[in-house]
Amino acid sequence: MDRKKKITSPSFFIGNFNDDIISFGSGQPDLPPPKEVYDILADYAGFRYGYIKGQENLRNALSKNYPNAHEDNFIITNGASEALDLTMRYLSRKGFTRIALPRPYYYSYPFVAEYAGMQIEYYELVNGKINTETFFNTVSNCHCILINSPSNPTGVVQDLDVLEKIETFAAEKGIWIISDEVYKDLIYGRSNYLIQGKRVITINSFSKTYAMCGFRVGYIYCPDEDLIFGITEIKNHTSMNTNILGQEMAFEATKVDREIITQQVKVWKERRDTIYEGMISLGLELQKPEGAFYVLPKISNSAEAVNELFYDYKLIAYDGGWFGAPGHVRFSYALDTQKILQGLERLKQFLSRRSA
Amino acid sequence: MDRKKKITSPSFFIGNFNDDIISFGSGQPDLPPPKEVYDILADYAGFRYGYIKGQENLRNALSKNYPNAHEDNFIITNGASEALDLTMRYLSRKGFTRIALPRPYYYSYPFVAEYAGMQIEYYELVNGKINTETFFNTVSNCHCILINSPSNPTGVVQDLDVLEKIETFAAEKGIWIISDEVYKDLIYGRSNYLIQGKRVITINSFSKTYAMCGFRVGYIYCPDEDLIFGITEIKNHTSMNTNILGQEMAFEATKVDREIITQQVKVWKERRDTIYEGMISLGLELQKPEGAFYVLPKISNSAEAVNELFYDYKLIAYDGGWFGAPGHVRFSYALDTQKILQGLERLKQFLSRRSA
Repeated sequence: MDRKKKITSPSFFIGNFNDDIISFGSGQPDLPPPKEVYDILADYAGFRYGYIKGQENLRNALSKNYPNAHEDNFIITNGASEALDLTMRYLSRKGFTRIALPRPYYYSYPFVAEYAGMQIEYYELVNGKINTETFFNTVSNCHCILINSPSNPTGVVQDLDVLEKIETFAAEKGIWIISDEVYKDLIYGRSNYLIQGKRVITINSFSKTYAMCGFRVGYIYCPDEDLIFGITEIKNHTSMNTNILGQEMAFEATKVDREIITQQVKVWKERRDTIYEGMISLGLELQKPEGAFYVLPKISNSAEAVNELFYDYKLIAYDGGWFGAPGHVRFSYALDTQKILQGLERLKQFLSRRSA
Repeated sequence: MDRKKKITSPSFFIGNFNDDIISFGSGQPDLPPPKEVYDILADYAGFRYGYIKGQENLRNALSKNYPNAHEDNFIITNGASEALDLTMRYLSRKGFTRIALPRPYYYSYPFVAEYAGMQIEYYELVNGKINTETFFNTVSNCHCILINSPSNPTGVVQDLDVLEKIETFAAEKGIWIISDEVYKDLIYGRSNYLIQGKRVITINSFSKTYAMCGFRVGYIYCPDEDLIFGITEIKNHTSMNTNILGQEMAFEATKVDREIITQQVKVWKERRDTIYEGMISLGLELQKPEGAFYVLPKISNSAEAVNELFYDYKLIAYDGGWFGAPGHVRFSYALDTQKILQGLERLKQFLSRRSA
């Protein structure tokens, strides 16, 4: 490989590297989607435009998972990415231009906010947790707060009482909450806390729970009718309906026994323990993830480190700098235990040569 | 139906109206996609993220249709809508903010340009044709010109010498051309003229040629590397890859014998003749469409007319006002001859009662 090609963003890694590379890179579950998702394909014959908001059967099925929700409170989108993009475009156009983002953050947040012409305030996470002392001060002048629990890239889940406090605070102040809950089904210790309220916009997708990343089916849930109408209008002009077949596949996923998710969480938890304990024994400093499938250990000169790890140790990991956390490296543990152990061995070599 | 519900945009009509309604509304071909598109479904097993730019096999196949093109000159998008949206977002962010749009226009153009923060200049079409005397004057101060030939909503194809002149003019001035050629395969008189140049961005899709509207597979073709890189970056944050299965289906479509398109054009031409001659015999004033599947006859008080046509005559047609052409009504003739004739009969009744 061309060593001169410096790695500066996750997109560098998209492609077909050979098998001896171990990837802790992309947030792509390795376990496939439930087979039911594919069962409808053989007889599928649709081809026409669908509703811009998304298909009724899917929106109806989703509404069953949210208290007091109606199918008209949902918009099906091209993944959570488009859900976020449309939401920020809508809010910004309505004059809600000041947004509070967590730091570390999912690497697209600042881009999408900036594309939408928003001004960003960051609230700093402390060991991945929201610090309520500084948080309310930072966000009180914002129109919108983005909450991401469980978090990419930290794997941290926010405490129940903190989420409740934020919910109350935002409702009182009339601040919009954008709650990115794409990892809501991947929490090890408790079930997800759904933030609720008139001005709460929940973002979710089928990518992480059902490993359907490539099909790009996400959604927006919000009780605010004007918001749903306004976002549907924007989507009408900027992408129209989400792929109709992807939506049918997602609908099939909603019917699958939730036991499959429980089983998956068990697998993720074992992997979490493997990588966490492995990294602790390597002397790394990190939070124990409570959800999602990421760890974010401290590793100095992280930009250099990910280049070295890739070119010298055939190991893909992401620079924390891409997530607002330089001096850290993000590892996705969406791969089997054997590979995780092998990867830890390579990381060990890297660390020992580095400190030598 | 609730007559109080005034029809003010095409989205009103999305849904399941009963069978006795005749729809000249949506630009959705009624003939299904080639069956080969569905043949791959039974064995499909993919699920992972794809390249943000789109799958290599599809981009490679597309590159064969453009002279001197390379697969890296393409980005696969969620239909032509996202292609337009991404293109305008990119150009606007690069400071190319003044855009010339045709009038009448495809109804999303002004919205997408405005969302991207662009300033719009309209060049007025005369009986659907570009008037070169006024055109160059209007566009010479713009950074970008949007050309849409064949046109939605007029069905008019721009003359070869006019397109060549525009191509030369834009190249000399360094003006970007966004050439929306989604109806390129539906021209009755000649083959499409591909506008070419360093700063030409071709927009296309599988929706019209292959009736794949619901699958939302479109693309951007441009020889400018920076543009492709920049748009891919935006898409990376705002929607990621286009649905991987939709792309595979589109790839199958590229392999289908082009004879199928020739056959389809024959069908469209017959329908065109039926509706055109029918409308002429009703005394309507309209251009004879040379491509696409729309006619845009003059009908006074067009906003009122489409309401009346729908509620009193069970006929769906679109107000020209939505396309910048008030006093006209757009009819899509993407339906079988029997239905077209039936629709013309209803139109006749409407017109005679109106003039009575």
